[in-house]
Amino acid sequence: MAQDKKVEQITSMEDDFAQWYTDICKKAELIDYSSVKGFMILRPYGYAIWENIQRIMDGEFKKTGHENVAMPALIPESLLKKEGELVNGFAPEVAWVTMGGSDKLEERLAFRPTSETMFCDHWHSVLQTYRQLPMLYNQWCSVIRWEKTTRPFLRSREFWWQEGHTIHETAEEAMAETEQQLNCYADFCRDALAMPVVKGRKTDKEKFAGAEATYTIESMMKDRKALQSGTSHYFGDKFSRAYDVTFTGRDNKLQYPFQTSWGTTTRLIGAVIMTHGDNNGLVLPPAIAPIQVVVIPVAAHKPGVLEAAAEIKTRLEAAGLRVKLDDSDNSPGWKFAEYEMKGVPVRVEIGPRDLEKGQCCLARRDTGEKSFVALDGLESQVQSLLTAVHDNLYAQAEKNLEDNTFDLNSWQEVKEMVETKGGFARTKWCGKLECELKMKELAGVSSRCMPLKQSGTEGVCPVCGEKCTTDIYWGVAY
Amino acid sequence: MAQDKKVEQITSMEDDFAQWYTDICKKAELIDYSSVKGFMILRPYGYAIWENIQRIMDGEFKKTGHENVAMPALIPESLLKKEGELVNGFAPEVAWVTMGGSDKLEERLAFRPTSETMFCDHWHSVLQTYRQLPMLYNQWCSVIRWEKTTRPFLRSREFWWQEGHTIHETAEEAMAETEQQLNCYADFCRDALAMPVVKGRKTDKEKFAGAEATYTIESMMKDRKALQSGTSHYFGDKFSRAYDVTFTGRDNKLQYPFQTSWGTTTRLIGAVIMTHGDNNGLVLPPAIAPIQVVVIPVAAHKPGVLEAAAEIKTRLEAAGLRVKLDDSDNSPGWKFAEYEMKGVPVRVEIGPRDLEKGQCCLARRDTGEKSFVALDGLESQVQSLLTAVHDNLYAQAEKNLEDNTFDLNSWQEVKEMVETKGGFARTKWCGKLECELKMKELAGVSSRCMPLKQSGTEGVCPVCGEKCTTDIYWGVAY
Repeated sequence: MAQDKKVEQITSMEDDFAQWYTDICKKAELIDYSSVKGFMILRPYGYAIWENIQRIMDGEFKKTGHENVAMPALIPESLLKKEGELVNGFAPEVAWVTMGGSDKLEERLAFRPTSETMFCDHWHSVLQTYRQLPMLYNQWCSVIRWEKTTRPFLRSREFWWQEGHTIHETAEEAMAETEQQLNCYADFCRDALAMPVVKGRKTDKEKFAGAEATYTIESMMKDRKALQSGTSHYFGDKFSRAYDVTFTGRDNKLQYPFQTSWGTTTRLIGAVIMTHGDNNGLVLPPAIAPIQVVVIPVAAHKPGVLEAAAEIKTRLEAAGLRVKLDDSDNSPGWKFAEYEMKGVPVRVEIGPRDLEKGQCCLARRDTGEKSFVALDGLESQVQSLLTAVHDNLYAQAEKNLEDNTFDLNSWQEVKEMVETKGGFARTKWCGKLECELKMKELAGVSSRCMPLKQSGTEGVCPVCGEKCTTDIYWGVAY
Repeated sequence: MAQDKKVEQITSMEDDFAQWYTDICKKAELIDYSSVKGFMILRPYGYAIWENIQRIMDGEFKKTGHENVAMPALIPESLLKKEGELVNGFAPEVAWVTMGGSDKLEERLAFRPTSETMFCDHWHSVLQTYRQLPMLYNQWCSVIRWEKTTRPFLRSREFWWQEGHTIHETAEEAMAETEQQLNCYADFCRDALAMPVVKGRKTDKEKFAGAEATYTIESMMKDRKALQSGTSHYFGDKFSRAYDVTFTGRDNKLQYPFQTSWGTTTRLIGAVIMTHGDNNGLVLPPAIAPIQVVVIPVAAHKPGVLEAAAEIKTRLEAAGLRVKLDDSDNSPGWKFAEYEMKGVPVRVEIGPRDLEKGQCCLARRDTGEKSFVALDGLESQVQSLLTAVHDNLYAQAEKNLEDNTFDLNSWQEVKEMVETKGGFARTKWCGKLECELKMKELAGVSSRCMPLKQSGTEGVCPVCGEKCTTDIYWGVAY
């Protein structure tokens, strides 16, 4: 019930960022914990955000010729083991099915931690000639990784994701696909999540188990920590060789295709919370908000008010917006707080005095600003306001990223940054694993990525002092 | 490659219906077998059909206020066991996770065979007052049931489905929901799959483990066997009591909500194959066809042909249709066979002579009829043809159902029907389990359902001869 349920205060982000985050997850009704330790339930409001993410992203994938498929959830151990690096990377966190009904299985089956092996197994069965290439596949599903410590959206034993898997005739085409999908993710973060990212390449230490190269988008949360928000991998022909995936090439000889994979997850919802949220709750970018506009009648018992509110809803829906009219018997004040908690981008208030004046009040979730607009032409006013909300959210996040990215020269400076306000440290790096490990040990940061935009200037490695040119980002990561 | 790949003949359905079915699954590229015994892979074309089914059905669910959620894939054994009938019904076919990483789990976890228990667990945690009711939830996911013998779409160890789960304040509301969703399924089968169904109630023997009542839609395949195509269950407050799901009612007392669940699966794709397919392959109803119209240029090297074909594609897409232009270098004859195998409802052919006359040729997949139509106004011609294809497919399937449903009076007549041509036997039934079991033993049929449309006439039970009024359907089922 609405009235029984209080919109409770949440912990302020300045007091306890982690608790603030968990409070939003629970109080905006995004998730619930379950009887299965480390697993989460996506409640209707949380899942509706994920549906919007899926719809937009899936549309982008299809524009570039990708097709969806569904692979088995369980992978035989022998199949998983054919590629040594992958299985070593994932073995410690695999959930194993060992019984079917009352029978012990002859071979245990892994609940997929990722599906490269299943796709290779399938391609081994269906690929024959270069004319079938490229094969551009994707699947939406959940995966399980047996994490020790878990947090909603950020790290849970099961999470929902998409995993793209493609094979190509040439290494160049596969590299181009890897890059295209990284850009697809970055554009999605900008246009749908109002979230700027740093695009870059992972170091060998941080790359995906079995990949030749891993590319990543890294975003900065309001607590100035890094969140890896999507990755795109280039495998060369390593898995093709391990799984005997071959095709007859243009030269009539048997060849191995070149492979990519790329993924984003429900973690993006965590990114949105920590990029835009505030002490009143969630703040959602309009593109993924389940409710873009909430209409709230004020003094709803007065003649004409409810009818006018209903008409506003009808008109805005006809303009293609996702609208909710809350005509429940809760007080307007309660409703304001409730939809602020849920991050609804725009609120429309209408009462008897507005009706007289032929106007209504629009309130923005991001800035709290209110404005009165004429009911005539309301649609375009709301559309503009939604665009303004998106743009402002992006600008704020970009400012946070820029203000808290520091060009530093020594590990001592990086350490000081971490211990004071946090942020991204941009330094040079000599390329040695040793220095990467020392940076972690001495300054408490992991390498986030070598940005695709390299400055080309010369500097020194902040650990060993060697002259070098490679730019790299460091930070404390989720 | 297209040219390397022959469109091979498939087994004729008259020679071997089971092999004909499997041939279509493979040669229309709907599925592939995998390295995991009893599991299937949904290939792009098969998954695209499922995506269309999902999109349409999900839209219908949302119109009646249902919301999607995501529940954990794994269920603790103790949770599963709280409701005795359910666990007894499913225990023999559950896949058990017993290891997480290298650690043996303290309690084994079932890969969900169905999720009533998880929904109850969640409701136990979030439900407080009658004002929160009804909760109308659904999830799209896969489930695992460890079947001994498997067939693509019809019976496999993993399948994809939607499972709706709802709770209500009163028994009446829950019963109304059960009925509404059964009707939703029947309407979907008629409007999207061009498939008539018999709506009815299952006998106690055939109902879902733990349900108070199970309703079903039963369809008849071209081999006159029955396919259970969707079910809707009413649970009363049995699970609520077992899982301690309670709310404060209008009378301020603690009450148990009344519950339903309802599901349809990728089995519907099997139903479509066996309802509409023929010896040239798949025949898809337009509403769920990934490609509704294929455009094939004839003598494509002649001036203007390819351009005209491309323009037709553009125009038909602008009219909202799903269109593929096949401008590959395969012969038109090969292409005709290929898209017949894939069940594309309408083919547009255009060659130099058509161009001269300002026309093109339309060929229907269902009847093979060809007609020449003017390029002007092509959109409406194609739209009408797609409607005609749908209507004809439905009419054919309805004729098959009606022609092969027999009103019979004794088990001997039912046995004779089964041994000659098959079909549905409609008889009276006294309601005794004993007679139902004897019918199976003596005539080889299972009860399909007691139709919602009861004639009300009196007759005799075909087994014991007792006077009774209940109508019931019998058949050999998949």
